[in-house]
Amino acid sequence: MSEKSSWIEVPDHSDFPLENLPFGVGKRLNGTVSVYTRVGDMAIDLGAMVACDLLADPRFSGRDLFQTDSLNAFMGSGSSVWSAVRYRLTELLTAGNPEFRDAEDNKHKCLVPVSELTMQIPSHIGDYTDFYSSIEHATNMGKMFRDPENALLPNWKHIPVGYNGRSSSIVVSGTPIRRPLGQTKADDADTPSFGPSKLFDIELEMGFFTGPGNTLGEPIPIDKAHEHIFGMAIVNDWSARDIQKWEYVPLGPFLGKSFGTSVSPWVVTLEALEPFRVQGQPQDPPVLPYLQTSRPGAYDLELEILLKTPKMSEGHRICRTNFASMYWSMSQQLTHQTSNGTNIRPGDLYASGTVSGSTEDSFGSLLELTWRGTKPLQLPSGEERKFLLDGDEVIMRAWGEKDGLRIGLDEVRGVVEPAGD
Amino acid sequence: MSEKSSWIEVPDHSDFPLENLPFGVGKRLNGTVSVYTRVGDMAIDLGAMVACDLLADPRFSGRDLFQTDSLNAFMGSGSSVWSAVRYRLTELLTAGNPEFRDAEDNKHKCLVPVSELTMQIPSHIGDYTDFYSSIEHATNMGKMFRDPENALLPNWKHIPVGYNGRSSSIVVSGTPIRRPLGQTKADDADTPSFGPSKLFDIELEMGFFTGPGNTLGEPIPIDKAHEHIFGMAIVNDWSARDIQKWEYVPLGPFLGKSFGTSVSPWVVTLEALEPFRVQGQPQDPPVLPYLQTSRPGAYDLELEILLKTPKMSEGHRICRTNFASMYWSMSQQLTHQTSNGTNIRPGDLYASGTVSGSTEDSFGSLLELTWRGTKPLQLPSGEERKFLLDGDEVIMRAWGEKDGLRIGLDEVRGVVEPAGD
Repeated sequence: MSEKSSWIEVPDHSDFPLENLPFGVGKRLNGTVSVYTRVGDMAIDLGAMVACDLLADPRFSGRDLFQTDSLNAFMGSGSSVWSAVRYRLTELLTAGNPEFRDAEDNKHKCLVPVSELTMQIPSHIGDYTDFYSSIEHATNMGKMFRDPENALLPNWKHIPVGYNGRSSSIVVSGTPIRRPLGQTKADDADTPSFGPSKLFDIELEMGFFTGPGNTLGEPIPIDKAHEHIFGMAIVNDWSARDIQKWEYVPLGPFLGKSFGTSVSPWVVTLEALEPFRVQGQPQDPPVLPYLQTSRPGAYDLELEILLKTPKMSEGHRICRTNFASMYWSMSQQLTHQTSNGTNIRPGDLYASGTVSGSTEDSFGSLLELTWRGTKPLQLPSGEERKFLLDGDEVIMRAWGEKDGLRIGLDEVRGVVEPAGD
Repeated sequence: MSEKSSWIEVPDHSDFPLENLPFGVGKRLNGTVSVYTRVGDMAIDLGAMVACDLLADPRFSGRDLFQTDSLNAFMGSGSSVWSAVRYRLTELLTAGNPEFRDAEDNKHKCLVPVSELTMQIPSHIGDYTDFYSSIEHATNMGKMFRDPENALLPNWKHIPVGYNGRSSSIVVSGTPIRRPLGQTKADDADTPSFGPSKLFDIELEMGFFTGPGNTLGEPIPIDKAHEHIFGMAIVNDWSARDIQKWEYVPLGPFLGKSFGTSVSPWVVTLEALEPFRVQGQPQDPPVLPYLQTSRPGAYDLELEILLKTPKMSEGHRICRTNFASMYWSMSQQLTHQTSNGTNIRPGDLYASGTVSGSTEDSFGSLLELTWRGTKPLQLPSGEERKFLLDGDEVIMRAWGEKDGLRIGLDEVRGVVEPAGD
């Protein structure tokens, strides 16, 4: 049970009690697009609330934060505005307050069942950066593709290793993902060939959207980094392992990743996730001073992956892991990104890299779960899977649970479509 | 001398005869931003021309192509609109036509000396992709950093190797570039350290801006690729070699590149560059069918780099090379990028990778020109340079010249500023 309650019903085990108040962009059946928050299964149209004078605070009224098709402006407005909006929403939605609850006309204008909204990508993503911050994942990759005896590369414990991803192909949960065509080369072949990827994989990642940006040339110090993080979402970094393997030396992953990246639609603020902030993994050897902070930066969030083939009526859990296992924190990732002066802009997306735990059922990719296809997953339908087949659906979920409070990020899902011609 | 002449004076050896008609975004002294073209040293305000009813063709009037702060909409409008605009501009600016020439009020509104404009970045760049398409450059890099006996990696002749770059830090010519801080590790050190890059370098590249995009999941075939290319610009891909070396395995270049990328402001259309389109280098072994085309895709453009230290009164040429030396064409780069279904959007930027020829004075980076610092450049000031020092200015130029016609891309320049704290 949550501490506070809302006059909007919150089903048991909902990801969205009054303490959550995530933000997303939704389109109504009539085509209107606006910024929304959510309590239980009811979405609340913040653009309509502005029009109804329910969000009249001078800190956020009169600015085009909500009657718009993205969260960029709101993300860029900074933590005092984010908090003020959440404070006002909490006030209006609390059980005992009649101001909004009893205003039928305003409720009619502002409340929409989530089922009647088509959620959109939360922001116009200027740049997308994907990190590689799980020590278990990096070690597994090194064991499988490089040297099992020296699986972790020399730079890994010094640098939150990452790369620039593709922004254009980031899609919201529910968007089908077409199996990519690409160049691959079999180990025993002399020359590469071109065709549909045969090793279609997933990567379970947590992402964050940036808040206010910095000026080009002016790094964000580690103790300020969290002020530049708006909130989190779940990311499925779909990966074509055969394309990736042939292309990635020396300039890194490219077409093995860029055919599609899925994000969950409701961005949960760091403020809402504060009860789940914990000390991260010990970093040994110590990191360089620009990455050192005494502020705990990990988040105790449970994660799971479900796989549903066309023969199955419901998803089967194939992974259960925890985001607090990450070696590098979001603040360290952001500070490292800007340490050379790179500027971030509000609404940029950062992904953590695959979240893998230390046990075989806590790996965040099929590559690791099936150990490169050598240990196929056995599904309740009697089927087995090494990698994804056409029609397979993947669902990833994330939530925190503590002292009776559950704050969730809902899910990101996507179905594999057959390759084109 | 050019074939056609304009009533606007074109100085000898200008990059901008009437046949060029490049497009850029400029800001006037009064702060007004608009899309411009240019003849000689005179800029012509297309937004103002729309207001003066000089661009009233229904194919491009009434659309917000020019009274705006970017070329994205015009780039997305497609080749028939680009051609129609260029045709109309040519008509209005030709010597014999009094329609615009003798309309003093319209001229007063539309013509601005280039010296009174502050040029802006040409488009809002959704995604920036940097390729690695010079065989000489890739070979040189392999010799210096990997195995001199097997300098070219096995995938290089099959794939136009590339990676996603950073969009946010792309700046227009003239913007100073601050020396980045970053992690580096000396070969003889046990651990990395953090500080200003000591190996601050340049990369001479040619870039192209995309035209109309494609739908996610639907590749652009090789014989259609050129229809998705609006025009070209010069790119300086500033590089911190010491940061790059320590970070780039296994996910590719990241902070060694993302602190700044400079582009020239006047985008020259493929239509204007058509006289310089030539057959590219032979590709052996043959490339896979999806990259094969009989349409010549190289451009015979002369390139040079000038270096000017604070002690020098003018730039000294340190490189002269030619863009036709590239192994992979722009069409092949674009088709490869979309072969997995990745969507491009109008105004994306693609860079070629360092353009290096086969002789020591035709290498497009200091790393190659000084062979990793072992052969310092001797400058007329009596100074020498291995890599850039604070205050050094780099100027890159590009032009085509054929049968008395010169079409140029002007220049991209930038000064190195000292590192921050």
